[in-house]
Order: sequence, then C-alpha cells, then structure tokens
Amino acid sequence: MIYLDNASTTKIYDEVNKKIFEINSEQYFNPSALYQQAIDTSNLLRQSREKLASCLGTTEDHILFTSGATEGNNLAINGFLTGKKDAEYIFDMGEHPSIFNVAKNLTSKDKIVKFINLTSEGVVDENELKNALSSNTHFVSIMHVSNETGAINDIKKLCKMIKDYNSNIIVHCDGTQAFGKIPVNVTDLGVDCYTISAHKFHGPKGVGAIYVKNMDKLKPLFYGGGQQKEKRSGTENVSGIVGMCLAGELATKELKENFDRICEYRNYMIEQISNGCENFVINQAKNNSPYILSISFKGLRGEVLLHLLEKQGILVGTGSACSSKKQNNRILENMSVKKEYILGSIRISFSSFNNFEEVKLATEQIIKQYKNLKESMSK
Amino acid sequence: MIYLDNASTTKIYDEVNKKIFEINSEQYFNPSALYQQAIDTSNLLRQSREKLASCLGTTEDHILFTSGATEGNNLAINGFLTGKKDAEYIFDMGEHPSIFNVAKNLTSKDKIVKFINLTSEGVVDENELKNALSSNTHFVSIMHVSNETGAINDIKKLCKMIKDYNSNIIVHCDGTQAFGKIPVNVTDLGVDCYTISAHKFHGPKGVGAIYVKNMDKLKPLFYGGGQQKEKRSGTENVSGIVGMCLAGELATKELKENFDRICEYRNYMIEQISNGCENFVINQAKNNSPYILSISFKGLRGEVLLHLLEKQGILVGTGSACSSKKQNNRILENMSVKKEYILGSIRISFSSFNNFEEVKLATEQIIKQYKNLKESMSK
Repeated sequence: MIYLDNASTTKIYDEVNKKIFEINSEQYFNPSALYQQAIDTSNLLRQSREKLASCLGTTEDHILFTSGATEGNNLAINGFLTGKKDAEYIFDMGEHPSIFNVAKNLTSKDKIVKFINLTSEGVVDENELKNALSSNTHFVSIMHVSNETGAINDIKKLCKMIKDYNSNIIVHCDGTQAFGKIPVNVTDLGVDCYTISAHKFHGPKGVGAIYVKNMDKLKPLFYGGGQQKEKRSGTENVSGIVGMCLAGELATKELKENFDRICEYRNYMIEQISNGCENFVINQAKNNSPYILSISFKGLRGEVLLHLLEKQGILVGTGSACSSKKQNNRILENMSVKKEYILGSIRISFSSFNNFEEVKLATEQIIKQYKNLKESMSK
Repeated sequence: MIYLDNASTTKIYDEVNKKIFEINSEQYFNPSALYQQAIDTSNLLRQSREKLASCLGTTEDHILFTSGATEGNNLAINGFLTGKKDAEYIFDMGEHPSIFNVAKNLTSKDKIVKFINLTSEGVVDENELKNALSSNTHFVSIMHVSNETGAINDIKKLCKMIKDYNSNIIVHCDGTQAFGKIPVNVTDLGVDCYTISAHKFHGPKGVGAIYVKNMDKLKPLFYGGGQQKEKRSGTENVSGIVGMCLAGELATKELKENFDRICEYRNYMIEQISNGCENFVINQAKNNSPYILSISFKGLRGEVLLHLLEKQGILVGTGSACSSKKQNNRILENMSVKKEYILGSIRISFSSFNNFEEVKLATEQIIKQYKNLKESMSK
C-alpha cells in the first residue's frame, strides 16, 4: 500500500504511539487530584504544553488543548463572539467546513458575515479582504494552508494589513494543514488565535490545540470543572496531549529536511504527469505547500480514478475527506476551475513517511490509470 | 500503591490499551475517505457504536461519540435549548460542575433556571422536583450516581413522574459514575439523553458518548465536516472510540460480579471504621453505589488525612477531583452536612481492579492515620 492521503489523516509516529501506551498504563492519574502522582501528571501536561508552545513560537500560557481542529475552530469563532449588534465577521471561501459551516450558522444567529473569494490560485483575494474591512469588523478568520489545494495564504502580511486597519480586530488562523509541515511562528504571524490538530502531523486523533494571544478575551465553549484556567473544562486527555506534543516536536525538528524532500516528490510528480497526461490543471498557488497536490483532469471522474488507483494499492483523495461524499467542491468552484475539470479532481497528499520509491510507483500508476480510463471512455 | 480514587479516574484495561495501540498503528485511516481501508475503519466505528449501544440498552443510531462527559453534558444542555422566552430548565444541586456551571451560565443568558435541593441522603428531593414542574418546564437534568457520595437517584421513577406531568419535557441524565458500575438501560430509564465518559470505566481519557433518544431534536455544539450525522463534526477519534466501547463491553460483562464484590469491600470498610473511629458521618443514601464511600470526620481536615494516607501509599480523594482545589463543597453543604464535618471529608472510591487485601490494608491505615491525627491535634 502506498498512502498518499495524508491531508486527510496521517499515520501516528511509532514513538508517539509507544508513549501513549506507556502513559495509559502507568500515568493514568487525574491531573486535578491532590496527591503526588496527580501532581506529576499535571507537571507532565505542563511540560508538554511548554514543548508545543515552543514549537509554535509562543509560551505555555497561550495554549489550550482541545479534542481536535473542529473543536478548536468552533471555540475560536464562538469564543470571540461579541454581543455588539453591528459587529462584522469575515471568512474566506476556502475555509474548512469546521470554519465555513460555523460561519454560515452565524448568519442564522443574525450576525453579519462576509465571505471573501479566492483567487484562481486558491489564496484569499487580498483586495477583496481589504475592501471588506470596516469600522464594524470584529473578527477575521483566514486559513494558513488550504486542505484542498495546499495554497498558502500569507498570514503575516494579511494580519498586518488587518491590524494596520484596526488593531482591535481579532484574527484567527486555521493552521491544521500548516503546523509540522511549513514553519509556523504564531508570534511572528501576529494572529490572535491559531488552530492545530494532532492527527495531521502524525499525532493521535481526537486531540488538538489552539493558541490564544489574549486568554482573557476568550469565552469558553464548555463549562465544567474549570480545567485549563476555566477556558476548556474536562479531564485532560493526558496520553493524547503528551502524544500530540511529542509529535509536534518531532515534526518541527525535521521540518526543513522533510519540506525539501517533499518538494522534490511533488515536483517530480508534476513533471511526470505533465509529460504523461493531457487536459489537466494543477490547482496550486505560487506559494503552495508541497504536501498537497490537487490535479483536475478534464472530463474524468476523480472518484473513478481514485478507485482504479486503489486497485493498485495507491490511496489518494478526491478532496477533503470531510466532504468526499458530497458532489460539489466549493473551493475549486470558487477558484473558477471549470466544471468539466472539477469532477475529475484528485488530491495527492504526502507525508514525511513517504519515500521516493513510493512516489515513483504512484506517479507511474496515476499516468497509467489515467490512460486506461481515457481509453475505456473513448470506446 | 493502593489506588482508591477511582471516581476521579480509572486505570485503563490492559486489553483496551493494547487495542488502542494496535489501531493507532494499523487502522489510522480517516473513516470519511472513500477507499476500502477507510470504509473498514468506518465499519469498525459502527461495530463499536453497536457494541456500546447494546450495553446501554439501545441501538447505534442513538449514540454520539464525544470527547468526554464535559462535552457530553454541555452538548446535552445546549443541544436542547429552546428559543422560547418562558421555557424553564431544572437541575439539581448535586450535579457535577459540567452540568452545574452550564446551568449557572444559562441564567446569565436570561434563561429561567430552577435548582432542586438534595435530601440529607444526597438524592434529589422528589417533592421539590415535583413542585418545580410547570407548563413551562422544557428540560430537566438529574444525575444518576453522585460523584461525591455515590447516592443513586431513582431515574426511572423521576423520569416517569416528569413524563407523566408532561411527556414533552426533555429529561437528561449524567451517567458518568453509573455506567459500567450499576445496571444502565436507557430505554428502561425512559430518559431522552444520557451522558457517559470512558475514563470512568477503565477506558481512555478524552472520549465519551451520549445517548440521544430523538436525534432530530438535538442541535450540534460543533459545526464542521458533518460526521456523526451532522450532530458531532470532527474526525472521529477511532482508537479512543474503539477502546471506550471495548471497555464498556468488559465492564458490563463483569458488572454484577464486580458490584457484589465492591459491596463487600465497602461494607467491610464501613464496619471497621465504625469500630475504629469516632465522630464521623457516612454520606450515603439508602440506595448508594458501592463504588463511592464519602466519610466526613468531625474537626479534621480531609486534605491532611489524604496526605497522611498518601505517605502510606494509599490514594483517596477529598471530593470531586474537579473541585478538589476549592475550599467549599456545594454538595455536602446542600445535604446539610455540618460545617465541622464537611472540612474533614474524604472520598474513597473503588474499582473492579481493587482486591480485598488492598481494601484491608487501606482500612487499617485510615483508622491508624485518623487516630494519629486526632492524637497530634489533642497535644
């Protein structure tokens, strides 16, 4: 099997899995209890928080642990809601459903929501964003790396533009496809809030984190025992959190080397496919994450190509796994990719666990199955 | 070490921990993806859901997986909120903070909230509850087993009383300290919603579930990729969920045998302490879970006794771990336990992992340390 659907989820690091097993069996105490074993567990959480904070370019008092990016994104948006009647919320059309659907839901709560279009490259239209800002703008959320195309938004530049307009505007960034793959320093980016998810960087599922610049401003989504400074109640998922922070550390440590290697894989694949296939577009930005390669073949069905590749042991996606069972593709549509191309889209997504041999074999099969499919259609 | 703080959290079953490790390393696929490995993962989730549903006396279409009881309780309350201005919400004073603090928060949202007092036994005052019901009552939440005292509310009877008054009233029950320890059949109880948490029955932390009788009525707390029938978005924590459902199955299978055994331990401890100590009360109901034994010693400090026991390798709690760092005890106060007793409270909580030898040693030490403490105080 060659696994190339890593934007959907990644395999856990062996080291992380072992650590989770070990903590589950040995350090199962409730970190809120009073005896030494509980205090040790609480200290372990703090050390993990420090480790993750350091990878993100911040300190531990700015980190909240969550159950994943969906909770993180919901918390970020709802946690910064204001009661002001005329407050405006801005999102871009490229956001993951865990932002986009929260944004749509805000409109049903009589909040004023503006959606910014993507350019044909898949990044946020900067001018449109600039023009959308007003004295009522309260909150802006722009994703770091597109989960559909890998397009990288220049968060630092966009954030500066927003803050120059009005430094009180809260800027959130969904970094789910960024952290562990491209350099992320939340302080340098200038954002107020940043979401990550462990299972996207070889950590466990069901755990994530958000960075929050000013904790006082954030309202919790859950009320309860008051864990995590009253901002995210609930007994901490100790082994999951420790596992995530270890995974974050490992991914950050090898980030540069992996990035360069994955660039080579991606470039090789593009080059070979360009030589071997016809009538396709690569949905990418000038500045694109090498980890995601979105290709749209004219007149084909992405799902059919996916299953042909599956028969050869190669696993890819047709787009976001979360929306893989839906027919439309909001993001490619918004990028003005033509309909006859959109249906023929596949998403190849790499991880540091892939090697060149796999990429070579997968590329050969993509070209071969593309040709088979074209041939069978022309009969 | 003798671990007697199992109401706070339990050690994971070895078998469950191994299963989690195995799934993390082998079945890491995103259940929403389209290829066979993802479909297999999705099927595994369904099987786990069926298994857990069966343990709860229901079917899989009524189960939502959450990140734990705090999310479950928050979801249950917020998911059933109504826009009706005069709707009334009823809670009891014995609830865990993940209900109680949500309830308190509702009052700040201009919702009408009524709190029902506990009897001196620690169960909900039935008459007060009956009198609180009105034609505006929309939602009632009563916990199954008290996390402080182990008092068991007769949910079936209370639910019938509420439904007889008005069958449209939504009844939620927090079963965090009940499931896996006393028989739970949600259909038989008659509730609309029921919350459980894996780490209280030897499953992993960071995962839980709620039973929902009528899914259509429940509004989600998270919006996103539409997982779990749009009711709880977010990539499923596959290994955690499978682990929880396996733990639920194991706990249910040995429930009767464990219950009887733990009753013996509890009764033994009460008998010995009654002979060996003076001026204490046992905070318990006629129908009390044997897994929790709350004792209040007059004129002592529970925390001091806890640390004396800790030195002997015996771990107990002073009350809910979630509120262990707070000075007051809302629940014992509401039960009208006298102040000079409340401060001297410890909570001993058993699990099926305990054996009689441990209980015997712990009992000896409780009596011995009690005596030492009394002696040192009288000097």
